[in-house]
Amino acid sequence: MIVLGIDLGGTKLTASVFTEDGIILRHENVPIGTLKGTEVGKMITDVISRMLNPEVTKGDRIAALGISVPGISFISQGTVWAPNIEGWENYPLLEEVKLVTGDIPVIIDSDRACYILGEVWQGNAKGCKDAIFLAVGTGIGAGILVNGEILRGSNDIAGCIGWMALNRPFNDLYKYCGCFEYHASGEGMGKVARQYLSENREYAGELAVKVIEEITSYDIFNAYKNDDLLAKKILNECIEYWGMAVANLVSLFNPEKIIIGGGVFGPALSLIPEILKEAKRWAQPVGITQVKLEPSGLGGDAGVFGAGYLAMRSIIKE
Amino acid sequence: MIVLGIDLGGTKLTASVFTEDGIILRHENVPIGTLKGTEVGKMITDVISRMLNPEVTKGDRIAALGISVPGISFISQGTVWAPNIEGWENYPLLEEVKLVTGDIPVIIDSDRACYILGEVWQGNAKGCKDAIFLAVGTGIGAGILVNGEILRGSNDIAGCIGWMALNRPFNDLYKYCGCFEYHASGEGMGKVARQYLSENREYAGELAVKVIEEITSYDIFNAYKNDDLLAKKILNECIEYWGMAVANLVSLFNPEKIIIGGGVFGPALSLIPEILKEAKRWAQPVGITQVKLEPSGLGGDAGVFGAGYLAMRSIIKE
Repeated sequence: MIVLGIDLGGTKLTASVFTEDGIILRHENVPIGTLKGTEVGKMITDVISRMLNPEVTKGDRIAALGISVPGISFISQGTVWAPNIEGWENYPLLEEVKLVTGDIPVIIDSDRACYILGEVWQGNAKGCKDAIFLAVGTGIGAGILVNGEILRGSNDIAGCIGWMALNRPFNDLYKYCGCFEYHASGEGMGKVARQYLSENREYAGELAVKVIEEITSYDIFNAYKNDDLLAKKILNECIEYWGMAVANLVSLFNPEKIIIGGGVFGPALSLIPEILKEAKRWAQPVGITQVKLEPSGLGGDAGVFGAGYLAMRSIIKE
Repeated sequence: MIVLGIDLGGTKLTASVFTEDGIILRHENVPIGTLKGTEVGKMITDVISRMLNPEVTKGDRIAALGISVPGISFISQGTVWAPNIEGWENYPLLEEVKLVTGDIPVIIDSDRACYILGEVWQGNAKGCKDAIFLAVGTGIGAGILVNGEILRGSNDIAGCIGWMALNRPFNDLYKYCGCFEYHASGEGMGKVARQYLSENREYAGELAVKVIEEITSYDIFNAYKNDDLLAKKILNECIEYWGMAVANLVSLFNPEKIIIGGGVFGPALSLIPEILKEAKRWAQPVGITQVKLEPSGLGGDAGVFGAGYLAMRSIIKE
């Protein structure tokens, strides 16, 4: 049996055909560029049509299709909300895809759900039934697996961990992104740096020579490596927030593994021991001894592997 | 069909025989007093034997038995950890109960799990599949229902929300109970009052005339009703913590309902609108509009109803 996984990322679409063992038979990347609305839908259905073509599959029939979207998948409606794609507030992706897939099962889920499914299938959470992917990128989200099933909540928007309240009292800066995301996401790190620089004119370190509006989390990581004081201050605060978030996931979910990944976490991987140290101070003391904190085993491919596993699980469940 | 529910509380054991519709046919309360270890076990099996007696059940056969325990139920081992019962660190309750129940199914779960099951069966969360009971008493715990099933975690200790990190930086006072429980449980409120009184000798309000070691959450609620400044300060801080915790549950779980109950929440019920107001500032903005925040519909009986529903569900699942 083979399945097709599609990961609609921020800048490109990745499509992979997988065997049951997670081996990639065929693979395609398509840049999204400036496409929007139905143009993105058409790009997806074009890729699917190509991948389903019997000449391409050499006679093997693709048994199911999984799609990872950068936002929320409203399962019962078949619609998708993706904040970074213009016109995808309530996009009827399932209906559109069904036009080219015929009777092949199609399952669409959020990127964060796919990340943890990918890690459980072929990454660092292999075989886990209670595991969480903490995705720290531009924003922050969590893909949460409870007893082998994705935690969806009553309306498909569970896992919005970027909104976690960690620092009282409430600050109006948290209003549009949430407290945790404000302080410890890629975008948040830039904001915190800009705020500090505007309030501390005497700082003359590495980050002071940057164009203030353009400072990114990568600049901060680079400066951190060079022992820059501001970068250390910002990252030490992030370690505190990441540790508190890990602790709260442990106390609430008692997971076997928490995988930390996402765009920001490439350079932050070496900080995992310090994050765990901070988490140990806060977390339920038995639960924290039962959890393993690990980096993503699949990196940027977690989404497409998860999409493949979405498809694979739908067949196995039948 | 009838089932037996047993709630082992802090001071008494409650046993009720329920019909399928949640009607109580028979009911018994037994004080626990100073019993410990196997004495508590024997008290439970004595009650069960009486309740199973055909003369008492008038020929109706009890189809299953559910037990709510004030601690953790390790389902696969059949053992129980109950911190307030001496000798119940790893107590083989299932094995002991099985000696008097024969082939009747027996299910044991934590009180917090039973609270939410009771509310879903016959209380204020009737029919919900994604609902949470936030139990604020001496300590703080959460019974969490995900898609109709109790969230257990990998080792049965999910829902330890009293350990939730909400107030950075870490304070050594959180070490033995967790940050949320330190600030906003019944015991925590007493601690916070005592700390304040020892640091503010000039305060001469209602709480200053109490014996400082004996100040309880009830004293604080009574003083709050009389507009005492210290009581208002403490409870306003609690409202902030309770609101942040509700917000975090909403952002992570996207539940239909959050039920607030437990010993402290009798007098705190009127604060629910203020807790919701605080939660709205922090929570994921769509999820917070989808949740209902309600008081317990069963009060002190939530545990025994939940134990009854544990039993009922085990039969229905078969």
